[in-house]
Amino acid sequence: MIETPYLLFLGDAPDQLAAKVAIGIRDWRPENAVGQLRMEGCKADLGLTDMTLAEGKAAGAKTLVIGVANRGGVISQAWKEVLIAALEMGYDLASGLHNLLRDEGDLVAAAQTHGCTLHDVRVPTVGYPIANGRKRSGKRCLAVGTDCSVGKMYTAMSMDAEMRKRGMKSTFRATGQTGILITGQGVPLDAVVADFMAGSVEYLTPENDPDHWDHIEGQGSLFHVSYSGVTMALIHGGQPDALVLCHEPTRTHMRGLPEYSLPTLEQLRDTALPLARVANPACQVAGVSINTQHLSEEGAKACIAKVEAEMGLPATDPYRFGAGKLVDALAAM
Amino acid sequence: MIETPYLLFLGDAPDQLAAKVAIGIRDWRPENAVGQLRMEGCKADLGLTDMTLAEGKAAGAKTLVIGVANRGGVISQAWKEVLIAALEMGYDLASGLHNLLRDEGDLVAAAQTHGCTLHDVRVPTVGYPIANGRKRSGKRCLAVGTDCSVGKMYTAMSMDAEMRKRGMKSTFRATGQTGILITGQGVPLDAVVADFMAGSVEYLTPENDPDHWDHIEGQGSLFHVSYSGVTMALIHGGQPDALVLCHEPTRTHMRGLPEYSLPTLEQLRDTALPLARVANPACQVAGVSINTQHLSEEGAKACIAKVEAEMGLPATDPYRFGAGKLVDALAAM
Repeated sequence: MIETPYLLFLGDAPDQLAAKVAIGIRDWRPENAVGQLRMEGCKADLGLTDMTLAEGKAAGAKTLVIGVANRGGVISQAWKEVLIAALEMGYDLASGLHNLLRDEGDLVAAAQTHGCTLHDVRVPTVGYPIANGRKRSGKRCLAVGTDCSVGKMYTAMSMDAEMRKRGMKSTFRATGQTGILITGQGVPLDAVVADFMAGSVEYLTPENDPDHWDHIEGQGSLFHVSYSGVTMALIHGGQPDALVLCHEPTRTHMRGLPEYSLPTLEQLRDTALPLARVANPACQVAGVSINTQHLSEEGAKACIAKVEAEMGLPATDPYRFGAGKLVDALAAM
Repeated sequence: MIETPYLLFLGDAPDQLAAKVAIGIRDWRPENAVGQLRMEGCKADLGLTDMTLAEGKAAGAKTLVIGVANRGGVISQAWKEVLIAALEMGYDLASGLHNLLRDEGDLVAAAQTHGCTLHDVRVPTVGYPIANGRKRSGKRCLAVGTDCSVGKMYTAMSMDAEMRKRGMKSTFRATGQTGILITGQGVPLDAVVADFMAGSVEYLTPENDPDHWDHIEGQGSLFHVSYSGVTMALIHGGQPDALVLCHEPTRTHMRGLPEYSLPTLEQLRDTALPLARVANPACQVAGVSINTQHLSEEGAKACIAKVEAEMGLPATDPYRFGAGKLVDALAAM
């Protein structure tokens, strides 16, 4: 568990895209960010208050979160100076970078000296159990996609936010490094050892109040041959009561696999639902989430209407038009 | 790759069952075993020549394989003396034990001194790639089960043996520690990190002659919620041309999951085949392998005949009655 609130470190980000993690935190947990720290030459701007480390500390920040990708997979000397200064002031550090904070001797030494914690959220720190498949109380919703990177995390985040707005009991359950940094906890599922994948998802989504919903962040796709095993573990470990089908209608082939075309939403439904019912015979498909970022407003609405007519399910782009329809569907279950 | 031939170390095995790995080597690769080494009190006997370390060495053995489970997950002092003596004579050691040879300081030191290798086959030693899904030449057959431990390894071993007897090009591809010790190589799939599972299976089953068959050892089951993600990675990484459905007809519930009943063979076929066709649209179900070890000869034959009639597929118990029918089916594809 990463201590909040955060000061968001944008470093010398070459552009806004590089600050994807920080943008996610600002969008989904603005209460977790007291401000942003930008170095000279930084081309990203979250529109948050610019702060020094000292100002962040005065504003209550507990953790400096590296909210930006680094160049060339190396933690530069310029970054190092800021990160070490942060540790000297008592900040914890949190990072989703491929190269780990714990592999940097000077950061490890400074953290030890000052009693701070280095969080590398790509690396599991828990000894997860083997899944036992036992029915857990509480409700769970899992986003499954026709492909990777079609908006499963944003869908789950949107539904969680809408439920909490309505006063419903709801938790977003992160399974990837961005989600873990946004919410401060979760399971880095793609880094878990094969035998423990489903068990780690059971661990992530424990028993809860009967009217509580977990919104489990999906990973991969049953139709993406590189990562389908991870998706399968989410479907069985997550024991979902509801599936939301996620789709990006302009995608021409599976991400990173030019020889593979996307399945239809019908194929996704007919594949995922029987598999989900192995772990939870009551599972239903609740609705469809369409990622319309590459469509005009008119095009988006037409696409959603077509999917609703064809599938007989509520559909929306929850990020663009709100998750109300999808939450209505869960509330009615 | 583990150097053969082996001397099989049975230690102080409390019974024959504890020597499962050694039995597998004797049954499937008898040419890999020059003899057995038994300590005082050993209750297992493979019917091989009893040898001292020196006799094994004289017979050409390169590796001492720990072919037996240890008691209480500890490598005892009595074992240690034999293992260190083996290293001093120039043997490599190979083990599928949960507690690793490499974690034993005295074994590591002796191996270094004498230039020997410690093989812990439960632990991946290769940096596997992410799966790319590209079509590979050669043919692949994957055994998939209604449950775990229904005979998938023995099915693949039997088919490989039958093909080689017929002079066909064939390789057994091990994905678990027993199979790896039997054949000297493979991928310990249940210990691979999630993101690399399918890639490790692609690595294990590379391009080959168009008329060469890989028989891939299955793991888990699509219907076993603890391990289904591993099975999924085999189906997509293995890119099988043929599936063989494996079943143990007397099983009353999924292994280790008393609340879960087994699927029917029809359910297994209808679930596994569409998923396999994502990676290989030409995939077919070639036949059914029935594990009849708990049935009489008459009962076994009746069960097989019933499955053949119901499924319209060749069925047999390849361990009991030979894999001829299943190999005929592959040869006809």
